[in-house]
Amino acid sequence: MYGHVHMPLRKTAKILGLGAVTLLLSARYLHWLFRRWRSRVPLKEVLFFPTSVTCVEHLFAPPTDLPLRCPCPLPHGADTSFTRLLRHLLSATSSLDLCVFAFSNQELSRTVLLLRSRGVAVRILTDKNYMIMSGSQIGALRRAGTCVRHDLEAVHMHHKFAVVDGRLLITGSLNWTVTAIQSNRENILVTEEPDLVRPFIREFEQLWEANDPSRYRSSLS
Amino acid sequence: MYGHVHMPLRKTAKILGLGAVTLLLSARYLHWLFRRWRSRVPLKEVLFFPTSVTCVEHLFAPPTDLPLRCPCPLPHGADTSFTRLLRHLLSATSSLDLCVFAFSNQELSRTVLLLRSRGVAVRILTDKNYMIMSGSQIGALRRAGTCVRHDLEAVHMHHKFAVVDGRLLITGSLNWTVTAIQSNRENILVTEEPDLVRPFIREFEQLWEANDPSRYRSSLS
Repeated sequence: MYGHVHMPLRKTAKILGLGAVTLLLSARYLHWLFRRWRSRVPLKEVLFFPTSVTCVEHLFAPPTDLPLRCPCPLPHGADTSFTRLLRHLLSATSSLDLCVFAFSNQELSRTVLLLRSRGVAVRILTDKNYMIMSGSQIGALRRAGTCVRHDLEAVHMHHKFAVVDGRLLITGSLNWTVTAIQSNRENILVTEEPDLVRPFIREFEQLWEANDPSRYRSSLS
Repeated sequence: MYGHVHMPLRKTAKILGLGAVTLLLSARYLHWLFRRWRSRVPLKEVLFFPTSVTCVEHLFAPPTDLPLRCPCPLPHGADTSFTRLLRHLLSATSSLDLCVFAFSNQELSRTVLLLRSRGVAVRILTDKNYMIMSGSQIGALRRAGTCVRHDLEAVHMHHKFAVVDGRLLITGSLNWTVTAIQSNRENILVTEEPDLVRPFIREFEQLWEANDPSRYRSSLS
């Protein structure tokens, strides 16, 4: 009789054990599939310049059902490194923190103003010498109400990076100038990788605080 | 008799089936573990400048049992953004492809020469105007036998990136100058992420081929 009782128990234990192992492995497999799927999602992109000059009006147009008909003589509808850069910037919904040495490109200035009109909080940190040079957009952006600070300590505030919504990092050799975009060999790297985005957010916050004009004025008095 | 034959067959099939499933899931699990382990290994680092000036002699010294005693007045043994950059470059065992606008830093020039003496294949692509400016290391490196090409088409060859052993990318705003390292706000991003490294390798190869002097001379004739 004991034999009859022990056999089903052993069998049940075996089945339960096998079931548990299979369940565990299946869960791991699903987790692996999920991670694999997720690991493909975060954006990782490298853009090179110079890029050909194309019409970018459609990127600034309000969303309508009709496609925008632009009469300008430039090629339309092209996907270039510059249109991709604009699209990444225009994807901002809450914040744009920009840390750039030279900013003279009018389309990029228009991008900043459009984002501000949509309620995106824009902060610009720039170089004290370059910002007053002819062609710089910093004055116009300041007059339009954009928060701008300039680095007071370094010889050059030579960074060229932007953080979109505290999530997307755009960084590289590219200044925000026409020459950089249309004539130079340049690169930008676009990534959502948190380990890379986080240090740039910290750097921006530190420089933003260190160059607060109220702190600067009080240290002068 | 057929029954006796069919039962072991069915059992064997069941065991084989279960075995196969278990094996498959175990393989996936091991693969998942391996990926998890590997995903932690690839280097991802962001370095900011300016950095304090410290002694870097120990990085160039031949490996000995005795610690190097340097009599210079600079701080010794510090781990700065610059020493980290040098360490990454000195980790090269087969190749260093460097694409840099301005190169005037003597320690970085010394790094290139040390790598060459170790048999590392070094290629430098640089800017045609900056390379002939006072303080540029390009002339000295060329005279020492380093392969150097300069970009002929762009207004500025403004890249600042290096690829170590076709594996490690170093890119950012930092030119290879003393001012950049000691006085400017600068960044470099160091990564082994293949999706980011690969485009830079392609860009280097394209520029290297496009600026082959023999091709240039033949197109002039």
